[in-house]
Amino acid sequence: MPFILPKYHAPYFAEPPLADAPLVEFRPAPLDGVAPDNYHATSIYPEYFQTAKGTWKLLEGSRMDCAVVREPGASLEVKEFRRLKAGEPVACGRRENGEDGIFVNTGAFGFSAASGEKFAFRTRITRETSFSIDYDELFDLLDFERRSGSIVWVLGPAVVFDRDARAAFVKLVEEGYVHALLAGNALAVHDVEAAFFETALGQGIYSKRAAVLGHYNHLDAINRIRKLGSLERAVRDGKVKDGVMRAVIARGVPFVLAGSIRDDGPLPEVIANVYEAQDRMRSLVRNATTVIALATQLHAIATGNMAPSYKVTGPNQARPVYFYAVDMSEFAVSKLADRGSLTARSVLTNVQDFIVTLERGLARRCG
Amino acid sequence: MPFILPKYHAPYFAEPPLADAPLVEFRPAPLDGVAPDNYHATSIYPEYFQTAKGTWKLLEGSRMDCAVVREPGASLEVKEFRRLKAGEPVACGRRENGEDGIFVNTGAFGFSAASGEKFAFRTRITRETSFSIDYDELFDLLDFERRSGSIVWVLGPAVVFDRDARAAFVKLVEEGYVHALLAGNALAVHDVEAAFFETALGQGIYSKRAAVLGHYNHLDAINRIRKLGSLERAVRDGKVKDGVMRAVIARGVPFVLAGSIRDDGPLPEVIANVYEAQDRMRSLVRNATTVIALATQLHAIATGNMAPSYKVTGPNQARPVYFYAVDMSEFAVSKLADRGSLTARSVLTNVQDFIVTLERGLARRCG
Amino acid sequence: MPFILPKYHAPYFAEPPLADAPLVEFRPAPLDGVAPDNYHATSIYPEYFQTAKGTWKLLEGSRMDCAVVREPGASLEVKEFRRLKAGEPVACGRRENGEDGIFVNTGAFGFSAASGEKFAFRTRITRETSFSIDYDELFDLLDFERRSGSIVWVLGPAVVFDRDARAAFVKLVEEGYVHALLAGNALAVHDVEAAFFETALGQGIYSKRAAVLGHYNHLDAINRIRKLGSLERAVRDGKVKDGVMRAVIARGVPFVLAGSIRDDGPLPEVIANVYEAQDRMRSLVRNATTVIALATQLHAIATGNMAPSYKVTGPNQARPVYFYAVDMSEFAVSKLADRGSLTARSVLTNVQDFIVTLERGLARRCG
Amino acid sequence: MPFILPKYHAPYFAEPPLADAPLVEFRPAPLDGVAPDNYHATSIYPEYFQTAKGTWKLLEGSRMDCAVVREPGASLEVKEFRRLKAGEPVACGRRENGEDGIFVNTGAFGFSAASGEKFAFRTRITRETSFSIDYDELFDLLDFERRSGSIVWVLGPAVVFDRDARAAFVKLVEEGYVHALLAGNALAVHDVEAAFFETALGQGIYSKRAAVLGHYNHLDAINRIRKLGSLERAVRDGKVKDGVMRAVIARGVPFVLAGSIRDDGPLPEVIANVYEAQDRMRSLVRNATTVIALATQLHAIATGNMAPSYKVTGPNQARPVYFYAVDMSEFAVSKLADRGSLTARSVLTNVQDFIVTLERGLARRCG
Repeated sequence: MPFILPKYHAPYFAEPPLADAPLVEFRPAPLDGVAPDNYHATSIYPEYFQTAKGTWKLLEGSRMDCAVVREPGASLEVKEFRRLKAGEPVACGRRENGEDGIFVNTGAFGFSAASGEKFAFRTRITRETSFSIDYDELFDLLDFERRSGSIVWVLGPAVVFDRDARAAFVKLVEEGYVHALLAGNALAVHDVEAAFFETALGQGIYSKRAAVLGHYNHLDAINRIRKLGSLERAVRDGKVKDGVMRAVIARGVPFVLAGSIRDDGPLPEVIANVYEAQDRMRSLVRNATTVIALATQLHAIATGNMAPSYKVTGPNQARPVYFYAVDMSEFAVSKLADRGSLTARSVLTNVQDFIVTLERGLARRCG
Repeated sequence: MPFILPKYHAPYFAEPPLADAPLVEFRPAPLDGVAPDNYHATSIYPEYFQTAKGTWKLLEGSRMDCAVVREPGASLEVKEFRRLKAGEPVACGRRENGEDGIFVNTGAFGFSAASGEKFAFRTRITRETSFSIDYDELFDLLDFERRSGSIVWVLGPAVVFDRDARAAFVKLVEEGYVHALLAGNALAVHDVEAAFFETALGQGIYSKRAAVLGHYNHLDAINRIRKLGSLERAVRDGKVKDGVMRAVIARGVPFVLAGSIRDDGPLPEVIANVYEAQDRMRSLVRNATTVIALATQLHAIATGNMAPSYKVTGPNQARPVYFYAVDMSEFAVSKLADRGSLTARSVLTNVQDFIVTLERGLARRCG
Repeated sequence: MPFILPKYHAPYFAEPPLADAPLVEFRPAPLDGVAPDNYHATSIYPEYFQTAKGTWKLLEGSRMDCAVVREPGASLEVKEFRRLKAGEPVACGRRENGEDGIFVNTGAFGFSAASGEKFAFRTRITRETSFSIDYDELFDLLDFERRSGSIVWVLGPAVVFDRDARAAFVKLVEEGYVHALLAGNALAVHDVEAAFFETALGQGIYSKRAAVLGHYNHLDAINRIRKLGSLERAVRDGKVKDGVMRAVIARGVPFVLAGSIRDDGPLPEVIANVYEAQDRMRSLVRNATTVIALATQLHAIATGNMAPSYKVTGPNQARPVYFYAVDMSEFAVSKLADRGSLTARSVLTNVQDFIVTLERGLARRCG
Repeated sequence: MPFILPKYHAPYFAEPPLADAPLVEFRPAPLDGVAPDNYHATSIYPEYFQTAKGTWKLLEGSRMDCAVVREPGASLEVKEFRRLKAGEPVACGRRENGEDGIFVNTGAFGFSAASGEKFAFRTRITRETSFSIDYDELFDLLDFERRSGSIVWVLGPAVVFDRDARAAFVKLVEEGYVHALLAGNALAVHDVEAAFFETALGQGIYSKRAAVLGHYNHLDAINRIRKLGSLERAVRDGKVKDGVMRAVIARGVPFVLAGSIRDDGPLPEVIANVYEAQDRMRSLVRNATTVIALATQLHAIATGNMAPSYKVTGPNQARPVYFYAVDMSEFAVSKLADRGSLTARSVLTNVQDFIVTLERGLARRCG
């Protein structure tokens, strides 16, 4: 059935206590990258700041654990602390119900941890939780988002370790379900290794056979791409015949490959500076309406940290941003869930099966 | 492509050292349930016993960790130690290359741990192993076994915790892919709970909603079945409208529900004495050609212990018995793999996805 | 610092709504092992039943998921459904605040899920949770319980797979910290295997070396004990020189070895009928004041099901029963925690380290 | 008992086939960061290159998956591919038994995967493996290395999430068991958070109580250090009273904090460029004789990739470099073990218990 966005519940600013609330105070950052005492840090919820009597500004492009800076034109920007400049006016106050001119709208979408509503009550997701409804909801959601939203995928390398999973993800790209891709060097390396050698880390992605001298395969793949100059050029020149990176580049889907200390290579497009990588990731996540993270704790948590739970859609209007984490490990999924997003959902399974089931289910609907 | 059984490699008894081997010695069991000193214990491999000069008998219906008893008619029976009777002649000798008149045929099917052949080399299966080929091989195998073999399923309760997985397994029963079912009380209880209330342990198997007073649901389900006298009668009388137990009973598929100390109830068909349950399980497993164990460490290991790696198909001829373990945990799967069966394979995933993918794949082939 | 029992909060029966509550209704069981419609099932909390106007009886020896039967002398017994006799008067009603003459005292010990008190707020225990305080609290608790309570241990076989862990548990027995032991066949088998061969499943419990023909070791250990007639006799005759079973038998600590379908053997003391095993386990757990379950999902959950969260200590007085689960797996521990006991705590670690650290910590205090 | 280094087995170069081997060929790198075709990639084993007839050079400071470059003075350098300069002479050839003038000495320390020797045969380490001997061997080894070697620790943040574990690691630093520290931003952030607030991520590292507005604690800790300018200055000025970073800085132990995309902050000492971080890490690991990685998959694998399995100690002489991985997860530990180091060992447990047990065990010996 068609997906319907939940209604946004705006706060009642006209009544006490909010009607009596003070203006939010701004104090200058004492140094570059340093916030003033009593700075306010953002949560994942929609937050309002009373900047003039009766004017409550809803943060746009928010994320948790950031400072709020008043820009020259009086607009508010959500900024990582490391990006603060000395002297910038930073919102201060830590109370969340208007006492400091700040209101955190935890009831924005009408479901809360205590309500017993379906999005909220799954307090413990385990491998024995039923996931049929999650697939069905996801089919509806992705149909909707393909046309009206922005779906950002966060991929661990396991997605390209298996032939069918890799092919299924490529189809999702081709069918328009992928608006941005966040990953690390390894995803791209083993995807290209598969394109060149049909192996991942030297093992057949279908046959599972260990290739002769197979431990050279990923090094050879990296060396070949580096010699060609970039993934982009390798794809454009037809040197990479299939796979996730080919599909993404061919279709013009924006991607970020963030570097890590585990990397071999790296491939030319990989961003060595992790804070620059964060900035690039966030520029894609700001516009996301659904984020799906598969089999990567590092990238999933990094993305979760910078993803808001809502997106502003109009004056005092917002929609939820959905966040799906798919992993084999209760531990990994709990780490994400502990961050408290009401719109975060988890599926505990092997991502190979997840992505194949997802692609086939979506294809069946359209077919 | 159609499944083809691997060739059986029989030993060369006409040449040394086997041509010069002594007869196997039998000594009487000193007491009921006690073996004589130096008794021989069976392995998972095909084993031969030289009972008369030049006569090497291949064990039928074998399993590991059992004694071998010479029956009155000179045939050999593989017996659990607890079933030995005082005075029964028990095979003795622990050397495996003929020195004691016993030959263990580890190379029976031409693949071995050292050979690098595809069935054997996957020494470490993790969540990042590719499983596409396993599904494809399984489709071929199950097509073959449906007509020519015997597929024994071992189910943990997770299979009925999810609506789609439960429905998929029911279809496999109806399509003839299930020749026997081994499970515990919980599988049947929550399956019946789902039939009555659409919940498992009080939570919707599709909606995930917590039912009002839902913790009574499984108790009510048990009480209702106990009042009716048996699962069998409840199904025959049309009181159980859907689910795994209904399908299995309706189709006359034999099943064993083995009791455990975790049980509520139990349901009437559950076998309270675990060793009687072992005997009943083994009577079904003896004829198995493929065993598939889903999401149950207890039952999977119990079944693995009593499953042979081969089935005798003619004079000095045998075929492999395949054993699949599907679980979320490397630990569970390693426990099974450590038992050393060359025909054991593991898939690390959520059984919900596994069973749905399996059923849909098989349906696509037939359709 | 010395352990202090939390105060028991008794309900106010003299005031509405309890003062106006009806008497609890009893209806006859329609058949053996079958409860009447609308039967009441017990929870883990202290429960009161108004059997005469103003007389609220607090259940003794309770456990969850049982029926409540009025005995001839008007006392109340908590009975598993399978133990009901046709015609016995069974308490009916499912409302928990007096509406049916039944009151469930969820606030018995002043901590609740919502209070933020230390026993309750640890909603998610992971491998990254701090456990220092758990050890310290456990040292205090066990000191107290050694003298004043009853500590029941539930052991998985992993405890005897390691030399130091096995020795540490033996010391706990000898120092009086073990009042009852619940386990399965495997714990006893591998403990005796270690006593005879210094191996577990054929691998050295210290050296880790694979013994020659080591897969015979546990079978030989079983065979030897079966020949001697019983563990008890083997210990009394000095045939078992060390280990957990020797310590427990030598000191007269009661134990239950419950059978399972995974068992080899079994050893003579193992109870084949799992419901008889449940009854024997419960007879030990009824008097427990602290239960500690190590590395066994099957036995831990079975024991958790039958363990109350309180013990009656006087007229309208009770103390908590503590339940510790120690395991490597978030999943195993979540399964226990989902059962909702407020007095259940989890430690996520290897039980070898847990038991060694516990024993050394207790020894340091006494020394 | 005192630790004794295993003997190094040098190859026999004077006999065929090595006596007849050709010289190794060097070809120029075609571009910066690109190797010539058929380049040789290093393994974790000692490798020899015949650069002049009869002159076999043993690589120093090796690591796997690198190129080998002939330096101007004819010495050989092991270089990551990204550090190659156009025109540098790179060793070519992929055969490992002299055919290309390259010999990989897999039998260097007399234990091999097939030998059954104690260091090698533990092919599957699970949570049920015995670890008593590992502690005892580690006590011996660390005693030896404290005086004669270099112990590099790789820490995940879990080590500072628990009061006792954090204190135990500080003692190891103070007692001289820590020669270098590799970690990420989070380790340092939560260590400093604990120093300022006695919390980690807002939860008491001993009490487990959620601090009021506790989610501000780690942000405040970062902000405070950034304001002071550096961890180093904060420690020198006495602002950080206790913990791992204080101990390490106070004692002058070199450390690398490598950035990741998950970071908040970061702290001033954190290296933003991950390849620069790799270089800094490797400069410390080159001299390591023992590496111990606790509860961090990212940093453990990164370090494992750059750690050799041996260290050259004299002309044609080497000793093993030991690598311990301690983690809760079979998956994490398998990932490391799959890389094939014979000197890699795993302990599956909670690092809190591991580090406390280690520190107490070492203290008992010295006391």
